[in-house]
Amino acid sequence: MIYLIGIGPGDKEFITLKALKIIKKADVLIGSKRALSIFEHNNKVILGKNIKDDLKNAIERYKNKEIAILSTGDPCFSGLLKTLKSIGINNITIIPGISSIQIAAAKLKISWEDYHILTLHGKPKNRDKLLKYLKNNENVIFLPNNLKDDIKYLISNGVNEELEIYILENLTYENERIRKMKLKDILNDEFSYLTVCVYKGEDD
Amino acid sequence: MIYLIGIGPGDKEFITLKALKIIKKADVLIGSKRALSIFEHNNKVILGKNIKDDLKNAIERYKNKEIAILSTGDPCFSGLLKTLKSIGINNITIIPGISSIQIAAAKLKISWEDYHILTLHGKPKNRDKLLKYLKNNENVIFLPNNLKDDIKYLISNGVNEELEIYILENLTYENERIRKMKLKDILNDEFSYLTVCVYKGEDD
Ligand SMILES: C[S@@+](CC[C@H](N)C(=O)[O-])C[C@H]1O[C@@H](n2cnc3c(N)ncnc32)[C@H](O)[C@@H]1O
Ligand SMILES: C[S@@+](CC[C@H](N)C(=O)[O-])C[C@H]1O[C@@H](n2cnc3c(N)ncnc32)[C@H](O)[C@@H]1O
Repeated sequence: MIYLIGIGPGDKEFITLKALKIIKKADVLIGSKRALSIFEHNNKVILGKNIKDDLKNAIERYKNKEIAILSTGDPCFSGLLKTLKSIGINNITIIPGISSIQIAAAKLKISWEDYHILTLHGKPKNRDKLLKYLKNNENVIFLPNNLKDDIKYLISNGVNEELEIYILENLTYENERIRKMKLKDILNDEFSYLTVCVYKGEDD
Repeated sequence: MIYLIGIGPGDKEFITLKALKIIKKADVLIGSKRALSIFEHNNKVILGKNIKDDLKNAIERYKNKEIAILSTGDPCFSGLLKTLKSIGINNITIIPGISSIQIAAAKLKISWEDYHILTLHGKPKNRDKLLKYLKNNENVIFLPNNLKDDIKYLISNGVNEELEIYILENLTYENERIRKMKLKDILNDEFSYLTVCVYKGEDD
């Protein structure tokens, strides 16, 4: 049995009872260092850079066992579901988790059904969607790929550098930071890998 | 202190540890009958049809207490956040919950960053967005307003009645049901109020 489990944005308190139960009785936990560090378990397999091979090998090795694969946030949002499908693993049970998108919405007190939601991770086409939305003043929540590069791209394609967006870093961690910044100021600063961005357009 | 708490799609197991902690120590729980039924507490206020007035009165009555307002799913997705803002209550702390959208994605094993997400609840304009997406064969997850009415609208505006969508009812409840149906067959059937619909377009 393979479970793909969303463990939430970072702080362990955002895990669901269901996820916790499965993690406790699993024979093995598989996940990134960040994900595994949250839970006590006597059998952990850390996924390295070669994530697809590492996943394949671990799943093969424990094939008759209860396997819990941990995905930060929600596995069905820019998470490990895609990776598993890409290596042909479909026979899984998925337990959703709280996504970083949802924490961002909760912090800014916005309703995400009114927002376009985009990830720029490995999706170059989405940069152009983002560009269009910003030019049209439409609400967007996005995960940057490389924040400064992404912002450079927007500015060089005609978005006003005075435009302000929210930058939400390390959500639910001790070093959480939330700022409203002009695009031009983003170019001169440093950011965490864990960053969500929000643009409140005219209709919010 | 007012907490707005997402309690997930129905099954109590989908609640987060954080939400549970706050619920346990709150002086009063406020919510719909469906939401309140999940938790034991000696002080519950049920919201009736006059949800805005009921909310205002309950918050006024318990103004120096710890208030936990329960919202099914995620309060920031077509949830109570909007209702609270509309009556001028902004000084709140929001704890996200697992949305019905996420359970639908987990059940169908799809990644929701590849889908448009729409609610038709009180958003008539979104019907036309849905129409456009379906005609373009684009992926959509949507909450219907009145499912049969919505489907009638789509067909009478040119969507092929042989088109198939997934209908996911009563997710995480004992009477959960997931079916793939042709639009024309939807017109001759009955559905739960708790329904999420998914169209897998060409790009999935
Ligand atoms: C590969 S995606 C995984 C998203 C995850 N499945 C989710 O639902 O949040 C990784 C990206 O998610 C965002 N992210 C994840 N956790 C975060 C956190 N605690 N704070 C801010 N952003 C976060 C960042 O943009 C990060 O680069
Ligand atoms: C006012 S909206 C609230 C949405 C909620 N905040 C969420 O995040 O799921 C109510 C709609 O959500 C959907 N819904 C909520 N719970 C559901 C469940 N357990 N199964 C199927 N649909 C559900 C249905 O479309 C229902 O009409």
